[in-house]
Amino acid sequence: MSLLVLKFGGTSVADIPAIENVADKVAAEVKGGHKVSVVVSAMAGVTDQLVAYCSEISQIYDAREYDTVVAIGEQATSGLLALALQKRGIPARSWMGWQMNIITDEAHGKARIQSIELNALRESLMKGDVAVIAGFQGVTSEGRISTLGRGGSDTSAVAVAAALRADRCDIYTDVQGVYTADPRIVKLARRIDKISYEEMLEMASVGAKVLQTRSVELAIKEKVPVQVLSSFEGDLGSDLNGTLVVDEEVILEQEMVSSITHSRDEAKVTLRNLSDMPGVAAKVFGSLADASINVDMIVQNLSSDHKKTDITFTVLRSDMLKALDVLKTKFPGTMIESSEDVAKISVVGIGMRSYAGVAQKMFMTLAENGINIQVITTSEIKVSVLILDEYTELAVRSLHTAYGLDREG
Amino acid sequence: MSLLVLKFGGTSVADIPAIENVADKVAAEVKGGHKVSVVVSAMAGVTDQLVAYCSEISQIYDAREYDTVVAIGEQATSGLLALALQKRGIPARSWMGWQMNIITDEAHGKARIQSIELNALRESLMKGDVAVIAGFQGVTSEGRISTLGRGGSDTSAVAVAAALRADRCDIYTDVQGVYTADPRIVKLARRIDKISYEEMLEMASVGAKVLQTRSVELAIKEKVPVQVLSSFEGDLGSDLNGTLVVDEEVILEQEMVSSITHSRDEAKVTLRNLSDMPGVAAKVFGSLADASINVDMIVQNLSSDHKKTDITFTVLRSDMLKALDVLKTKFPGTMIESSEDVAKISVVGIGMRSYAGVAQKMFMTLAENGINIQVITTSEIKVSVLILDEYTELAVRSLHTAYGLDREG
Repeated sequence: MSLLVLKFGGTSVADIPAIENVADKVAAEVKGGHKVSVVVSAMAGVTDQLVAYCSEISQIYDAREYDTVVAIGEQATSGLLALALQKRGIPARSWMGWQMNIITDEAHGKARIQSIELNALRESLMKGDVAVIAGFQGVTSEGRISTLGRGGSDTSAVAVAAALRADRCDIYTDVQGVYTADPRIVKLARRIDKISYEEMLEMASVGAKVLQTRSVELAIKEKVPVQVLSSFEGDLGSDLNGTLVVDEEVILEQEMVSSITHSRDEAKVTLRNLSDMPGVAAKVFGSLADASINVDMIVQNLSSDHKKTDITFTVLRSDMLKALDVLKTKFPGTMIESSEDVAKISVVGIGMRSYAGVAQKMFMTLAENGINIQVITTSEIKVSVLILDEYTELAVRSLHTAYGLDREG
Repeated sequence: MSLLVLKFGGTSVADIPAIENVADKVAAEVKGGHKVSVVVSAMAGVTDQLVAYCSEISQIYDAREYDTVVAIGEQATSGLLALALQKRGIPARSWMGWQMNIITDEAHGKARIQSIELNALRESLMKGDVAVIAGFQGVTSEGRISTLGRGGSDTSAVAVAAALRADRCDIYTDVQGVYTADPRIVKLARRIDKISYEEMLEMASVGAKVLQTRSVELAIKEKVPVQVLSSFEGDLGSDLNGTLVVDEEVILEQEMVSSITHSRDEAKVTLRNLSDMPGVAAKVFGSLADASINVDMIVQNLSSDHKKTDITFTVLRSDMLKALDVLKTKFPGTMIESSEDVAKISVVGIGMRSYAGVAQKMFMTLAENGINIQVITTSEIKVSVLILDEYTELAVRSLHTAYGLDREG
C-alpha cells in the first residue's frame, strides 16, 4: 500500500465526462490498494471567466475579493469528483482550503503556504475515504480565502504530498510528460523519462508550463517524488508514460542539454541614460518590487560617455503597463522604451556544468539562422536569450537539432 | 441612521451590468447615512447549471457534496459586488456562511439555520464597511458547507436582519412587489401596498414565488419588517414602490380576499382501496416523511362499502417519482394513481375570517366556468382547490374578477 497524491489540471476535468474519466483513474488506484488524495483544478475556462468578471468591474481590484471569486472553480470540481467517486462505490469527501487549514500569508492572488494541518484529513484517509482537495486555494490566519497564483494547484498537490509524507505525487496534465521542446513546434521532440529537480525548476521558470515553479521548489525542499503524466493516455501510474522528476544522481546518463524551452509571456523595458551612480539599479528594481512586479532578465550597459547607464530588463507582459507607470513616476524625464514583441529562448541541461561551449553553440546556431540576440542571461544549468518574437519557432527548431535532441526517424 | 438589510435575487445580479446596478442602489443607501448589509443570490442560471452537473453524475447524490458544489454561485456574486462597491469608494467586504458562523443543522440541501454569530460582521459594519453576504449557504457544526434550499437567500436575509435587529429587510426581486394575482395571467392585477405576515405566509406556501416560505415564518417569529420591491424600477427604498409585509393591525382596510395565487409545482397521488384501519394514514405519510417528501393537500374518502378508504394527496412534482417508489415498496399490491396534470388555485385573505361565503363564491365561480374541483383544502385565511392544469388561467382570471380585485380602467 502506498500513499499517493494525484493532481488533475483544468483540461483533465474540463467537463463531466472528463471528471468521470478522472474518477475511473482514481478508482483504479484505490482498487490497487492505495490510500489516495486527489487535488483538482477548476474546470477548464472557469477561472478565466471569473477573472474576466473581476476585470470587467475594475482593473484595480481588492485581491481579497478577487480571491473569494476565483477560488470557486476548484470548490465545484472537488464536490463533483467526490460525487463521481461515490457513484463508483468509493467513499470520498471534498476538502476546501479552509476546511483543511492550508494557512497562507496575506499575499492574495499569489499567496504562499505557511502551514498545513491535516489531522482531520488524515483521519478521513485512514478510514478509507478518498480525499478530494480543492487546489489553488488556502485561507489566511484572518480567515479570508486566498489563492496561490496561476498553476497553484501543482503547489497544493506537492504541499499535501509533503505534509502527508506521500510515496509519490502524480501530476496529471494534458501533456504526456516533459519534452525536449514543445511538440507543437518541434515535431521530433522526445519525451524525457527522467529529469532532475534542478532542470525541472529551470524549465518551469523559463516558460515550460508543465509545473508551477513554486511546486518544484517545494518538491526539492521537501524531497517529494513527482511524476508528470497525461490524464488522457496510457496506463495508470506507470512511470513509462510520463516524466519522473528525481534527484540528479538517479539520472545515469546526463546529456549536455536536456531541453529547449520558449516563453512569449515576457515584455522588455529599457531605461536610457540613467545617471551611473551607486544605488540606481536598487532604486529601479526596488520600486518594481514594491509594486509586486517580478523582474526576470536584467542587463546593464554603460553609455558611450561612461557617465550614463542603460538598464534593460524583462517583466511579465501582464505587468508591463503597471511597470511603466511605476517607472514614469519614480524616474520623471527618463527615456523609457518598451516592447512586447519579444520571446525568451532557453537551453536547459544539468550536463552543462561539465561541458564547455554550450552557450557558444547556442549563439552560433542563432547567428547562422540570422536571429539577433537582444539580451542574454545564464545560470549554472541554463542559457536564456531574448529575441524577436517572430523568430521563436525557427530558433527552437534549429537549437533542438543543433544539440542533437531530435528523435530518430 | 438605520440598519438595513437588502437582498438581491438571481435576476437582479444576472450579469456584471446588473451587479453594477445593484452597487448603485446600495451606494445610494450608504450615502443616505445607513449601515447596510447586502445578501446576494447566485447570478441567474448559475445554480441551475451546478445542479445539472450534479445530476449528470448521478441522480442520487451525497447532499453534502451537492451543497459544496451549488453554494459557489453566491460566493462569486458576493465577491463581485464587494469589488463593484469598492470601485464606488465604498468600503465593502464579502462574507461566506462559514466566515460568519451561520450554523445550520445537517439537513443538507434544505438545511435550517440554528444560530448566527455576527460579532465580526457587526464590528466590520460599525467600522463603516458594507457587509456583502453570500445568501443560501451556511455551515454545519462539523464544518461542512450546507445550503438552505431554493429561495434560501430570502431566509438568509431575514435571519441576518433578525440577528442584527435591523430596521428593515428589503427584498429586491424581479417583480414590483406582491400582486393580487400573477400579472402575466391577469392584466388587471394590482400591486398590494401592505400585506399581513399571515397572508404572505399563505401566499408563499401556495405558490406565489415572491418569498421563500421559511423566510416569512422567520420574519413573523423575529418580527422583522420586510419589504418586497423591484430592483429594476422605482426610487430606492421608497415603500411606494413595493409591498410592505406588516402586522395585521397596521392594515386599516381589510379586503375579504387579497389575492388569487396558482401553483403548477404539484402532482396528485391517490391510493385506492386501502383497508380502513386506524394508523393507515400514519403509515402512508410517515413513510413519505421518512423519505423527506413534503405532502401538501390531503383528502381521505371512504369507499362505497365503508371498509376501504381512498387517500389522495399532493407532493411537489419533483418528488413524485420518489413518492411512488416509496409507496410501491410500503404498500405492495395497492392501486396507486398519479397525475402531474394538475394546478392548485388559492384565494388568500386575512379578511376571510370575518366574512362568510368566501369558499362558496369560489366554488360557484369555478362551476360557472365549467371547471371541476378535484381536491379542496382550507385554512383560516385561505381556500385552495386542485383543478386540471389547463384551466389555470381561466380560473385565476375569473376569481380575480369575482372577488372584485380587478384594477379600475
